[in-house]
Amino acid sequence: MCFRRLLALCNLLCRTREITEAVPLRRKVATMVTNDKNLKTAFCIIGSGPAAHTAAIYAARAELSPILFEGWLANGIAAGGQLTTTTEVENFPGFPDGISGQELTDKFRQQSLRFGTKIFTETVNRVDLSKRPFKVFTDDREVEAETLLIATGAVAKRLNFKGSGDDEDGFWNKGISACAVCDGAAPIFRNKPLAVIGGGDSAMEEATFLTKYGSIVYIMHRRDTFRASKIMQKRALDNPKIKVLWNSVVTEAVGNEKGLLGGLQVKNLLTGESTFLEVSGLFFAIGHEPASKFLDGQIETDADGYIITKPGTTQTNVEGVFAAGDVQDKKWRQAITSAGTGCMAALEAEHFLQEHGSQQGKSKY
Amino acid sequence: MCFRRLLALCNLLCRTREITEAVPLRRKVATMVTNDKNLKTAFCIIGSGPAAHTAAIYAARAELSPILFEGWLANGIAAGGQLTTTTEVENFPGFPDGISGQELTDKFRQQSLRFGTKIFTETVNRVDLSKRPFKVFTDDREVEAETLLIATGAVAKRLNFKGSGDDEDGFWNKGISACAVCDGAAPIFRNKPLAVIGGGDSAMEEATFLTKYGSIVYIMHRRDTFRASKIMQKRALDNPKIKVLWNSVVTEAVGNEKGLLGGLQVKNLLTGESTFLEVSGLFFAIGHEPASKFLDGQIETDADGYIITKPGTTQTNVEGVFAAGDVQDKKWRQAITSAGTGCMAALEAEHFLQEHGSQQGKSKY
Repeated sequence: MCFRRLLALCNLLCRTREITEAVPLRRKVATMVTNDKNLKTAFCIIGSGPAAHTAAIYAARAELSPILFEGWLANGIAAGGQLTTTTEVENFPGFPDGISGQELTDKFRQQSLRFGTKIFTETVNRVDLSKRPFKVFTDDREVEAETLLIATGAVAKRLNFKGSGDDEDGFWNKGISACAVCDGAAPIFRNKPLAVIGGGDSAMEEATFLTKYGSIVYIMHRRDTFRASKIMQKRALDNPKIKVLWNSVVTEAVGNEKGLLGGLQVKNLLTGESTFLEVSGLFFAIGHEPASKFLDGQIETDADGYIITKPGTTQTNVEGVFAAGDVQDKKWRQAITSAGTGCMAALEAEHFLQEHGSQQGKSKY
Repeated sequence: MCFRRLLALCNLLCRTREITEAVPLRRKVATMVTNDKNLKTAFCIIGSGPAAHTAAIYAARAELSPILFEGWLANGIAAGGQLTTTTEVENFPGFPDGISGQELTDKFRQQSLRFGTKIFTETVNRVDLSKRPFKVFTDDREVEAETLLIATGAVAKRLNFKGSGDDEDGFWNKGISACAVCDGAAPIFRNKPLAVIGGGDSAMEEATFLTKYGSIVYIMHRRDTFRASKIMQKRALDNPKIKVLWNSVVTEAVGNEKGLLGGLQVKNLLTGESTFLEVSGLFFAIGHEPASKFLDGQIETDADGYIITKPGTTQTNVEGVFAAGDVQDKKWRQAITSAGTGCMAALEAEHFLQEHGSQQGKSKY
């Protein structure tokens, strides 16, 4: 089992223990996870990040009785999404001393529960959007939903080269990973040279993080400048344990005597020269892919799979289906912008339901 | 002096005391408020709410050295904006137990300061946007700014009828107010009948709040349905101290023997009947006006004065000038959506500066 999944599973088991043992707010989960195979709701949410939970908070306060599927290791990450793979969140307003990604998503989740959101730790396999009510399927359940919010986020991308795969000759999960925060603390990386591929904020952050464990951390980038923000670049470049290899790509991953990653063939794109770099860990930090495949083409996306929303709204091409957060955002990708779109989606869903006579009362806009 | 201003002044004095006495994070203010009459910055922010501070957090972390003018009782409200006039904020994600509006804006402000935002408690009177660098003027200072963010929010609207004014014959601030949270606790309202005009969330919230003080609270509304969200309506209507007067408008405010508000002439729009309603307090909760007048027409607005931004961005019609939060938003008006647009504005400003060669390094998008 890969390190990340093991860690995610640990998180989940810890969470389950909490529910049954201690924290009062969490107790609600136990009472809400019923055995109902067929459920109906005015508003179903697929996702578990800032967008999903902000929508849940607004919808629950508006008495829409939302059902939220947070996924069981959906996208290969524990419920809570990408934030759970971040160490310290410094830029979510309201937390002047910073807060861990896991703690922040726990707070989002508690707030959803407080107002009555029904949360299932199940992954949605399939949806049927051909008519309303829409249908949402997991292994255990089928939900009929008057309105639907897709807030499934995005997942980390991987590169392909000789030895990068998860086959017998590959070193995926034997030294190669796409999640430094999940896997960095593993014993095989301790006091060993490590490498990160990428040039964005994530690459800077993950490289800085890995200096806790590795003897030296190389940032490998195919260009001669980073696209990361200045503050993140500065932090990485000022770190004495980080060294940048510009204009460089990996052509092959090579094993050591234990069958784990032992080094990389690195090609300099300017000189054409190939050198061997001894490393015990390689971490991809090269961007993300929106988690929209399960929609099976029923919602309009762009070429990269990002759901297309009408500008300034969260409306998709299917009336009554909304999209919020990173699954529809390739530009901002921030927790706070994601939360903002979650709020918009809930308000738009309420408005839609009222227009279609599914709800009593008047909308606030 | 009106109750609100007195309260705002108290808040401000308390804040000043804090700066010089206790909280370490706040100490930074003292060191940052210099006597410089002429300053330059890459990014100047006008505003003090979630949009302004989220922009400041992002811009300061990106090393843009932002200068933020939070205003001295700007819009007639203490720095922090409309949130400071709210009791409990339940729907800002990250605070499962709720948080007071004042406490939340204090956290925003601390976070801006943490990363080096320079904050001045001065109101911007005038801007010159005819060329870059833009010029921003307060009574004490002139700032040259490469980019500018307008995040000045919106202010509460007032109605006009006989006796509503602040002239000698009017009862404005002698019983009539537009801020229940600011003024509700005043002795003249204790155990007296009170009235709120409006039909939205604010009207419901303010009426519920006023039941702490008044003997009964009337909600007066010109229509026969509220536009408030169901949860807020339910809370107000379930309150035994609240009574709704549908299809009703105030035609005149009448004084008592002490020269304070004593009652209202109320006209029923369906029957045409006019009745006298004995109340000691009347609170307007009828919407807001964007604080864009100080721009003197230099930025394109709609007929209501809301700044027009390109959909999906915070860009105004003047290149390098951005707008975020309620001053450009008549639809969502939520703290979390406002914060999201603040983040977007900072990222767009950084991008703009890099495009125009004012900054080194590459943007993250």
